[in-house]
Amino acid sequence: MQSLLDNIYQEVFPMLGQGKVADYIPALACVEPRQFGIAICDNEGNVFTVGDADVPFSIQSISKVFNLVLAMNHYGEGLWDRVGCEPSGLPFNSLVQLEYENGIPRNPFINAGALVISDMNQSRFASPHLAVRDFVRRLSGNPEINADRIVADSEFEHRARNAATAYLMKAFNNFENEVEDVLHSYFYNCALEMSCADLARGASFLANRGYSQCGEEQILSPKQTSQVNALLATSGMYNEAGSFAFQVGLPGKSGVGGGIIAMVPGRFSICVFSPALNHMGNSALGVAALTSLTKHIKWSVY
Amino acid sequence: MQSLLDNIYQEVFPMLGQGKVADYIPALACVEPRQFGIAICDNEGNVFTVGDADVPFSIQSISKVFNLVLAMNHYGEGLWDRVGCEPSGLPFNSLVQLEYENGIPRNPFINAGALVISDMNQSRFASPHLAVRDFVRRLSGNPEINADRIVADSEFEHRARNAATAYLMKAFNNFENEVEDVLHSYFYNCALEMSCADLARGASFLANRGYSQCGEEQILSPKQTSQVNALLATSGMYNEAGSFAFQVGLPGKSGVGGGIIAMVPGRFSICVFSPALNHMGNSALGVAALTSLTKHIKWSVY
Amino acid sequence: MQSLLDNIYQEVFPMLGQGKVADYIPALACVEPRQFGIAICDNEGNVFTVGDADVPFSIQSISKVFNLVLAMNHYGEGLWDRVGCEPSGLPFNSLVQLEYENGIPRNPFINAGALVISDMNQSRFASPHLAVRDFVRRLSGNPEINADRIVADSEFEHRARNAATAYLMKAFNNFENEVEDVLHSYFYNCALEMSCADLARGASFLANRGYSQCGEEQILSPKQTSQVNALLATSGMYNEAGSFAFQVGLPGKSGVGGGIIAMVPGRFSICVFSPALNHMGNSALGVAALTSLTKHIKWSVY
Amino acid sequence: MQSLLDNIYQEVFPMLGQGKVADYIPALACVEPRQFGIAICDNEGNVFTVGDADVPFSIQSISKVFNLVLAMNHYGEGLWDRVGCEPSGLPFNSLVQLEYENGIPRNPFINAGALVISDMNQSRFASPHLAVRDFVRRLSGNPEINADRIVADSEFEHRARNAATAYLMKAFNNFENEVEDVLHSYFYNCALEMSCADLARGASFLANRGYSQCGEEQILSPKQTSQVNALLATSGMYNEAGSFAFQVGLPGKSGVGGGIIAMVPGRFSICVFSPALNHMGNSALGVAALTSLTKHIKWSVY
Repeated sequence: MQSLLDNIYQEVFPMLGQGKVADYIPALACVEPRQFGIAICDNEGNVFTVGDADVPFSIQSISKVFNLVLAMNHYGEGLWDRVGCEPSGLPFNSLVQLEYENGIPRNPFINAGALVISDMNQSRFASPHLAVRDFVRRLSGNPEINADRIVADSEFEHRARNAATAYLMKAFNNFENEVEDVLHSYFYNCALEMSCADLARGASFLANRGYSQCGEEQILSPKQTSQVNALLATSGMYNEAGSFAFQVGLPGKSGVGGGIIAMVPGRFSICVFSPALNHMGNSALGVAALTSLTKHIKWSVY
Repeated sequence: MQSLLDNIYQEVFPMLGQGKVADYIPALACVEPRQFGIAICDNEGNVFTVGDADVPFSIQSISKVFNLVLAMNHYGEGLWDRVGCEPSGLPFNSLVQLEYENGIPRNPFINAGALVISDMNQSRFASPHLAVRDFVRRLSGNPEINADRIVADSEFEHRARNAATAYLMKAFNNFENEVEDVLHSYFYNCALEMSCADLARGASFLANRGYSQCGEEQILSPKQTSQVNALLATSGMYNEAGSFAFQVGLPGKSGVGGGIIAMVPGRFSICVFSPALNHMGNSALGVAALTSLTKHIKWSVY
Repeated sequence: MQSLLDNIYQEVFPMLGQGKVADYIPALACVEPRQFGIAICDNEGNVFTVGDADVPFSIQSISKVFNLVLAMNHYGEGLWDRVGCEPSGLPFNSLVQLEYENGIPRNPFINAGALVISDMNQSRFASPHLAVRDFVRRLSGNPEINADRIVADSEFEHRARNAATAYLMKAFNNFENEVEDVLHSYFYNCALEMSCADLARGASFLANRGYSQCGEEQILSPKQTSQVNALLATSGMYNEAGSFAFQVGLPGKSGVGGGIIAMVPGRFSICVFSPALNHMGNSALGVAALTSLTKHIKWSVY
Repeated sequence: MQSLLDNIYQEVFPMLGQGKVADYIPALACVEPRQFGIAICDNEGNVFTVGDADVPFSIQSISKVFNLVLAMNHYGEGLWDRVGCEPSGLPFNSLVQLEYENGIPRNPFINAGALVISDMNQSRFASPHLAVRDFVRRLSGNPEINADRIVADSEFEHRARNAATAYLMKAFNNFENEVEDVLHSYFYNCALEMSCADLARGASFLANRGYSQCGEEQILSPKQTSQVNALLATSGMYNEAGSFAFQVGLPGKSGVGGGIIAMVPGRFSICVFSPALNHMGNSALGVAALTSLTKHIKWSVY
């Protein structure tokens, strides 16, 4: 496993310098682009790393996975009345489809869907903005995980489009709490800082039929685990989901902070980090590393 | 395997009567709805059947898979300049996205995409309308397979929306041949009549890393095979692709004739047939049978 | 003129009972539907009335006209960089077009456009929410005009869609002030209560090449007056603008409170009030009365 | 009147060289751009001209006006079941709205609407493609008017988008005849060649309450005449209709051949010709000349 990681790292390293760091908020724009790390957590709980695998980074949209799983633990099938499970076919932050489809987001990984899930968690938890943080601490066994408040505040200041999205759902009666309150929790979750090793551990239950070695508990049933992976496979990579399935063939979720988690069900979870993004908003080296991975293991879920 | 099939059949049979036969052309509207059959072809080439598994039916959109694979055999990566590999998020016959995206269809399984693929095959073959027929004969080892000319002619007569689609692509210079000629070939392919057993055999190479036991030849490389399955998983079931992945978790392709093929990669291909459709246009009992299948085998690709 | 009014009133009165009062906020839903009044103000400043012409009602979207004229008095041609002058072709509160067109609303009479104009006035006036009120007091010579605070507060409470619209424009950098502040001013303007007589007087400058008899001042230049009338003619009646032009043929603006103002340029302004709305959201008797008007005077602008 | 024309001509002439000749078909691309003519036909039947007012040019979309009037003469109010009277808000040849609105075009001046009108005339006339030609010959008193077959054939060859539009309407059951047949008639009408003088005479009934001095007959009732002018005012200038109303304030219709007709109701009709188009597809000098006109006469319909 370590030599697999080393091979991928060597193969992809020369691409360092490609892509462009996210700059929609100042706090993210100043991240050093020349970082690259990978971590694997296998189903026995062993962690293998290479490069900048212990550097904490802003997990951004990867938080949507933990956000969803947390809500699945507290809501039954009813969750799916408020959000769909179909690919959207449109940019992650588009309002067009949301208006045509009466405020029901296509899936939990576009912004609208993640905001609905946040609204559900907001209704459920005493300290809503800490609920996801505490959950990922438990899943990755790292009690030091925290959000970067400067990033969270900067995102709130640039909240206009997400606020528009939330208010549009409110207009369709698909939003219960105050928009500003939910946005605070949502941005706090996006601003969580985790390393590749943290995320590989934290997501490992998705490769392990729902059982977290690290947390020593069943997080989701095997069936629910397949469902989350199915959603990730069809909608986890923004508008690149189809070509990511075509090229890599693993369930995965990316964030504009430069992280991507992916699952090889039954075997291991993997997290790659490199801040420079391709034109679809996914980590350039991250996609390349996962492409290299499935080439080396000669296996994809398909 | 036979007892698996029998269990599924028993479990789903009581649903017979649900759904509604496709009626957009008269020739399909008069199909007897109370039919139900399943066939499995494992990677050793054994075929197991239950119910109406030997009744030929109109394969309709399932032909899009063979159409694509045939084109992949003749065109290189260049094929993907003319058609994408992303889910569309819109009804299979919508023109909206096609106009916004300058005549490049989202994927080969929406009508626009299949028409582009047909246009490519039209440019390549001496007898374009027979090319797909001969290909499926070879793949399923059944030289008797033919199209139902009444169905093909009826579809041509009701060609207006497909003609609009093809002309719109022509307006964007993404269509080479005469629209009417390609439509004739396209409808001929849709009107091919095959049984569950034919289709399970015909699609088995997709579960077998590209190797057809029946045809005794490598049809696609293992990598290409994964790619076709990835496309099927993200876009094979019309607007139900996401919930089919969520619920069933196998690459599959449905047709309005009531057939669905699905693949359990590395193990077997399966074809279910029952003409009554659910509100998304997929065979009601077909979806139920495949849901039952993954429940019984406790396995999905995710 | 009085007999013209009487004839129209008699002709249309039997329709009383048709249509449905706006019910999107509780405060409007309880308005008595069986009210009907008309007032004309000719270019000599004479006012003719019939029926409930002195009953104050919620002017709602009619305020968009005064809002725009006020902004035209303070901003030059630059106003048109932030809002267009084309019909929208979509419902008055749709976000779809706004997203496709980068946050520049099609015209000042859809909600998005009126919100941008409110944002401009917000930047300009010391007491922004009173600016339009004071302007209409002056134009109609009635210092008693005020907003109904219950209506304004109720609209603010149900602000979700307008908030979404404003935030979406903010995301495109076409909104300067705090969304909530501008919404307060905007709803205050919508909640102004005026009678047919007030409105006929208040809008008379639009029929009089920009000169207000009542205010004894030139409000707009003759050219600007034609421009406002042109905008009203192409976009003043929600999605019924085209058929209103086709059928009535006068520049006009309606509000969901049941009022419609219309101009016969060079001769007189008219205001009709009846709270029950047709399915396009315009006063049912109002549209009928104006249709009757152009039939009787055998004249339309076309 | 002659001095008015001369003044406009002098004022606008220096702009010659601006804009770009239509090039979507080869036959139009080679038109000499440096042409400029104006003709006015007053309600007494006097014709005044300046510049290239007697040069025949391809009337293109101006034919949609005659096409509509001809159909209004043969169909009653039922015509409006198959086409609307609202501005579209989208490019003249877009299919998006047509799909959302079930094949009913927004108005008779977008391509979809003109094709439906052509379909109606096709069902009615023995020699459909000659019906409009004979009508304009009568209206303008010029029996020499003919279509340029090379232009008509070239448009048919590049018919893809119009064919897509017609087939889409056929799919919604809003098209009766064979698509190819109607397209032949439609393109024949577009390829009619008329001079400014021909068109000013031909359209004069629209400025004269429906009475044609030249044809010595009532073409439309005064009410119908206002209706056609209302449609032209809201939808006659492609996506520039709103700003044309804002800036010029007359009912008008443009064609990509470089002609624009406009009406000063009660006084005269005018036709301007100059082949180079602005970025909205309307004659650059044509729009400028009409802007100059309403400035000089200090009058617009608003």
